[in-house]
Amino acid sequence: MVHLFAATHRSSSTSYNSSEMDYRLRQEEVFAELPPKVEALLVTHLPNIRYLSGFSGSAGALIITAKNSVLFTDGRYRQQAKEEVRCAQIVITSGSALAAGANWIADRGLSTIGIEAEHLTVSLHASLRHLLPAGSRLRDIRGVVESLRMVKDEAELQRIRDAARLGSSLIDTALAAIRPGVSEVEVAAEMEYDARQKGAEAMSFDTIVASGVRSALPHGRASSARIRRGFVVLDFGVILAGYCSDKTRTVYVGKPTRQDRQMYEAVREAQQAAIDAVSAGVTAGEVDSAARSVLRRAKLDKYFTHSTGHGVGLEIHEPPRIGSNQMEPLRAGMVITIEPGVYVAGNGGVRIEDMVIVKDRGCEVLSPASKELITL
Amino acid sequence: MVHLFAATHRSSSTSYNSSEMDYRLRQEEVFAELPPKVEALLVTHLPNIRYLSGFSGSAGALIITAKNSVLFTDGRYRQQAKEEVRCAQIVITSGSALAAGANWIADRGLSTIGIEAEHLTVSLHASLRHLLPAGSRLRDIRGVVESLRMVKDEAELQRIRDAARLGSSLIDTALAAIRPGVSEVEVAAEMEYDARQKGAEAMSFDTIVASGVRSALPHGRASSARIRRGFVVLDFGVILAGYCSDKTRTVYVGKPTRQDRQMYEAVREAQQAAIDAVSAGVTAGEVDSAARSVLRRAKLDKYFTHSTGHGVGLEIHEPPRIGSNQMEPLRAGMVITIEPGVYVAGNGGVRIEDMVIVKDRGCEVLSPASKELITL
Repeated sequence: MVHLFAATHRSSSTSYNSSEMDYRLRQEEVFAELPPKVEALLVTHLPNIRYLSGFSGSAGALIITAKNSVLFTDGRYRQQAKEEVRCAQIVITSGSALAAGANWIADRGLSTIGIEAEHLTVSLHASLRHLLPAGSRLRDIRGVVESLRMVKDEAELQRIRDAARLGSSLIDTALAAIRPGVSEVEVAAEMEYDARQKGAEAMSFDTIVASGVRSALPHGRASSARIRRGFVVLDFGVILAGYCSDKTRTVYVGKPTRQDRQMYEAVREAQQAAIDAVSAGVTAGEVDSAARSVLRRAKLDKYFTHSTGHGVGLEIHEPPRIGSNQMEPLRAGMVITIEPGVYVAGNGGVRIEDMVIVKDRGCEVLSPASKELITL
Repeated sequence: MVHLFAATHRSSSTSYNSSEMDYRLRQEEVFAELPPKVEALLVTHLPNIRYLSGFSGSAGALIITAKNSVLFTDGRYRQQAKEEVRCAQIVITSGSALAAGANWIADRGLSTIGIEAEHLTVSLHASLRHLLPAGSRLRDIRGVVESLRMVKDEAELQRIRDAARLGSSLIDTALAAIRPGVSEVEVAAEMEYDARQKGAEAMSFDTIVASGVRSALPHGRASSARIRRGFVVLDFGVILAGYCSDKTRTVYVGKPTRQDRQMYEAVREAQQAAIDAVSAGVTAGEVDSAARSVLRRAKLDKYFTHSTGHGVGLEIHEPPRIGSNQMEPLRAGMVITIEPGVYVAGNGGVRIEDMVIVKDRGCEVLSPASKELITL
C-alpha cells in the first residue's frame, strides 16, 4: 500500500451528504468551550477533524479561531477535501499539514494555542514549539471536542441507526453458520462477507466469535478453534458513513445445563435493568449499578469484570464510560452501549449488548433483536 | 465491544511458536543502541513491545534495563501474557501499565529514562513526569527500536513469506469476481472472505479496489462504484502471525487502448528496474531513482506522485522509506515493497507492487505473480 504521499482513507458512503451536518455550529460550540485566552484551536485527532469539518482523510490539521476555520492537508486529498469539507477553508500543503498550520498561526501573530494533549505525540509537540515563535503558549484543551461529540445531533443519529440496523442483521448470518465443528473464524468470515455485501465500509473492530471455554474471554477474537457444545459469544459491528455499530449476542450449541441457563438469564435480566435505568439526568454510574445489582443478587457479580458500556459514534469507544461510580450525567442524544457480561474461567461466558439513544425520558434501543437464549 | 477492562487483541496464530524468536538478543541489541546515560528504556509502542517480548495485547508497557526486562499489563491479559511473553518478567497491574512501570522505575532509583517520543502523547508524558521523582530525566530515543526492526531475522522472514503467499493467492479470487457491473466492494468482499477462510488474522489495511477513473486515486479504497471498462487497481494484504503482507496488481476490463498499454508497460518496466536495483549497500534513494528514471523516459514521471516503497513487517508501513534522495543504505534482511505507479486524473492509473527481501546480492521477490497485463 502506498505510503506518505498516498494512503487509504475511509470515505463517506455516497448515500449520505455531509451538507446535512452543521459544522459551523459545532465549530462555534467548541470555540465557546475553550479557555478565554486561547486564540486558536489546533485539532489533530482525525475523528475530531471529521466531526468539525467533514474531512475523512488520513492526514490533516484543522485550525479554528474566532474568525476562521482552515483545514490543512496534502495533495492526495485535494479532490476529497473539496467534496467533503464544509465551513472551512482548504489549504493544500506540499509538506506536513501540522507544519503548514503552525506557519499559518505564526503569520497571524496568534500566541495562545489550544492543543489536544491526549492525541499529540511528544515529538510533534516539540516540532510545533520549534515552528511557533518563542513566547507562544500551548494550552492543553484535552477532551473539549470529545465532550461535545458525546451528544449526537439528528444527522448523526440517522447514520448510527442505519449502522446499527445493518450490524444487527448479521446475527442471522452467524446463526446460519454456527454448528459443531465449524471454526470461529469461518463464522466471522461469513458475517464480514455479509456486512460488505450490504455496503458496510468496514467492520468497526475485529469480530469476536468466542466459543466453549473461550466464551469466558471478554476479548475472544475469532480464532481457529472449532465450535463445540457450549456458549458462543458474538460481538461485532460495522462502519457506515463513518459511524460505528456495536452489538453482542450469546447463543448456545447443544442443550444448556440448568446452571448455564441461570447464568444466561441473570445477564439478560441485568442488561434489561441497565436499559431500564437509562434516562437523561441519571448518572453513568447508576446505570452500571443497575446491571451490577442484578448480578450481585445472582451471586455472579464477581464474574462481571468490566464496565457496563461506553459511548459510540465516529469511534467505537468514546466517552462517556458507563462504569462504577461514574458521576457523568447522561444527556439526551448520547449513544451508549449496555453490555454486562459474566465470565467463568474454564467454563464459559455470556454477554448481551445493545446500543441505545438516551432520551429525555428513558431510551431508544437500536435495532432490538431477540434476547431469548437461542440454542443451536 | 467491551472497553477498558477488556478489549480485543490480535493473537498469534497457533501454528507459530513465539519461542522461535530471540527476544533476549533483541533486548540486548536495543539496549546497546541507547545513549550511554540511559538506565531504563520505557517501551510503549505496541509493535515494539511485541518485537521485544512477544506480547501482542492491546495495553502494556515494557521496561528494559541492563539487568531486567519487565512487561506490565492488566488482568485481562494474564493468560495471554503467560503464553506469549519470553525473556521478560510479567507484572499484572490493577491500574494503568504505564503508571505501574513508572513506580517500578522510581522504586529502583533509576533517573535517566529513554522514551519513544514519536509514540508517547503529551498527556501521558505529563503523567509520567508526575509519577517519577523530581530530577528524573526523560530522554527521547525515537526510532531506536524501529531501526533494529528494519532487518528481519529468520523466524520473522518465515512468517512474512507465509503472509505474502497467502496474500498473493487472493489475486485469483479477485480475477474471478471482476466483471463489468460488479461493485468494487463486492470484489473486496470476495477477497477478504477468501483471506479469512485461508486463516488470515485480518487484512493488513482497507482493501483497495479502484476501477475506471478511480484507478487514478492512489488511495482508492473499494467503494460502491461499479466496475466498467478500464484499469482496476487491486492493492491488498493480510496479517498472519502478526506479520503483514502487501501486494498490488492492476488489470484491465475490456480492450485497452494503445496508450493504456504503454502506460502499463512503463510502470511494469519501472517496477522491474527498481527490483533489479535492490541489493545490500545500495541506498533507498537509488532504488527509487531506478523506477523514476524509467518513467521519466516514458514522459510519465510527473504522474508518479508517491515514493517507490516502504518497509513492512509487524506494521504495514515501517522504515525504511524508499523515496527520492533517501540516503539509508539497504541491508540484507530488510523487507520492502517496490510499488511505482502512474495516475492520470480523469483517465486512470496503474500500480504494480511486490514485497522483496534484500539480499547481500540482489533480492528475493516474495510470491511472484504474473505481471503481464491481464484483460478481463
